[in-house]
Amino acid sequence: MNKTIILEKRPVGKPQLTDFKFVDEEKPQLEANEILLKASYVSVDPYLRGRMSDAKSYSAPFELKKPISSGVVAEVVESNLAGFSQGDFVSGLLEWKEYQKSDGKGLLKVDPAKAALSAYLGVLGMTGLTAYLGLTEIGKPKQGETLIVSGAAGAVGSVVGQIGKILGCHVVGIAGTDEKVAMLKAKYGFDVAINYNTTENMKEAIAKACPDGVDVYFDNVGGEITDGVLANINQFARLIICGSISVYNETSVPMGPRVETTLVKNSALMQGFIVRNYAAKFPEAMAKLTEWVQEGKLTYTETIVDGFDQIPQAFIGLFEGKNNGKMIVKI
Amino acid sequence: MNKTIILEKRPVGKPQLTDFKFVDEEKPQLEANEILLKASYVSVDPYLRGRMSDAKSYSAPFELKKPISSGVVAEVVESNLAGFSQGDFVSGLLEWKEYQKSDGKGLLKVDPAKAALSAYLGVLGMTGLTAYLGLTEIGKPKQGETLIVSGAAGAVGSVVGQIGKILGCHVVGIAGTDEKVAMLKAKYGFDVAINYNTTENMKEAIAKACPDGVDVYFDNVGGEITDGVLANINQFARLIICGSISVYNETSVPMGPRVETTLVKNSALMQGFIVRNYAAKFPEAMAKLTEWVQEGKLTYTETIVDGFDQIPQAFIGLFEGKNNGKMIVKI
Repeated sequence: MNKTIILEKRPVGKPQLTDFKFVDEEKPQLEANEILLKASYVSVDPYLRGRMSDAKSYSAPFELKKPISSGVVAEVVESNLAGFSQGDFVSGLLEWKEYQKSDGKGLLKVDPAKAALSAYLGVLGMTGLTAYLGLTEIGKPKQGETLIVSGAAGAVGSVVGQIGKILGCHVVGIAGTDEKVAMLKAKYGFDVAINYNTTENMKEAIAKACPDGVDVYFDNVGGEITDGVLANINQFARLIICGSISVYNETSVPMGPRVETTLVKNSALMQGFIVRNYAAKFPEAMAKLTEWVQEGKLTYTETIVDGFDQIPQAFIGLFEGKNNGKMIVKI
Repeated sequence: MNKTIILEKRPVGKPQLTDFKFVDEEKPQLEANEILLKASYVSVDPYLRGRMSDAKSYSAPFELKKPISSGVVAEVVESNLAGFSQGDFVSGLLEWKEYQKSDGKGLLKVDPAKAALSAYLGVLGMTGLTAYLGLTEIGKPKQGETLIVSGAAGAVGSVVGQIGKILGCHVVGIAGTDEKVAMLKAKYGFDVAINYNTTENMKEAIAKACPDGVDVYFDNVGGEITDGVLANINQFARLIICGSISVYNETSVPMGPRVETTLVKNSALMQGFIVRNYAAKFPEAMAKLTEWVQEGKLTYTETIVDGFDQIPQAFIGLFEGKNNGKMIVKI
């Protein structure tokens, strides 16, 4: 018996339990140079919603009637592959199955002695890699510079801000509730936090929060928040465009002030960031993030749901605000 | 006697002859580690209009009642400075004076045996450096990629397109008249040229001109032309924002489609370019450009006006379409 979750129907609007189906498969038989993996923790993420549609995007859509995949931490329960031993733990993009086999490609070994296994799906997984590599590869923050983060209370944003502090920046976060704003300062160490829902004039609020101007902007939101940031950028500013959640649901192309003149006047850079393009840097980034977690410099929040059967409900819960921080299912 | 041109009044609208004043100064006396320069060729450029205003921009405004400066090729007529000999020619940002002294800082030696001296103000001056360094430092075109250039018939654009061909790209130019479009293909070797004034749907026209999509965009214009290009960019596209002439005269902030989603979906980069930030690369770029001019791979057009007294009129002529290619005054 090997429980597997397939995409039964493409969701329309909010995903429903009936969009998913549990099927039973045989446990796979290992051949040479393969390992058998048993899932330990499964990550459910909002971006998976996009892959459940068949619209063109940077990730291929999931196939109908085929298993869904996401970030998974798994235990090696059998190995015919050099370099992997029974009892090792790995993380990677794996299917929603209790057991699956792998040729080891794309898997990272993770160490339960260094951090909780669930952390390898968040702060030490794609979330942390996105924050670290977006910030360091495009943002290149220098000590004493000002970093501003939109969507700052989100899984990625909260890590970005903490890394900014570790690297010696003045760090400003933008979020949407007073509770989040308070948390940014108290829990994650942001120097200043702005509630965009209660702020009349974002441009002025950002100017006040960034007395030396903005050198690096890590953008998870887009739209008018970005307009307010752009009005405050310094010469040679670097803008990491990681997400545009504010415009995802718009049906026509959203309009805004043109950015060209601002970019030229400030010799500024604006670059779209997708973490999987930086796979070659994952080991180096993981080492750094693990070190900071062990030293207690990087903190994180997670909601852990128990049981393989709960994966679809946990995923749906993301759209109902059921999670606080990273949502993870423990198998 | 040493004729000098000062900024008498800040122009309002189109510059007038009365905005300039000729004054006579003493010929400077050399001290240790100085050279005396005699102007040979003076460059007049549209961007100087901006410096004649006192609005904040990336270049400081010219001071009233003080000499104007621009790109100048000059002869060393006396030298107390090691490395410079009488009879050498140099180019640099110098004042509109017959004679001036210099400590040599910021001057490049130029070789009249390698190219016409006037070329050091155009294809071998800031124009060529802007084209070469913007294209190679931000655009990084690879053989077989597609390069598209707006303002392609301008001094910078025509050099960008030719360098694109030298580097093995499919090169598409955008310009505003049928004459310019014909010249782009016949004189400068562009593969395809588009007249944006007679094209209904730029997005479709660009798609047709760039069957493999756009990898590098060298933008001198901005606005709706850029919108059409953005709709056709490839993954990892690089957009060099060098100028936004289409919006310079707008009084309110121009609006357009937001670019964030396009940049993320394509992991694309958009960067403002100002050539003087790349001064460390000037010697290397000059060597390359000189080689290509000598080999006949880079061609250029210039309009040469004769006489120091004609400098203000030549500058004003830029706004009356009096020039064909680079406008230069021979002293």
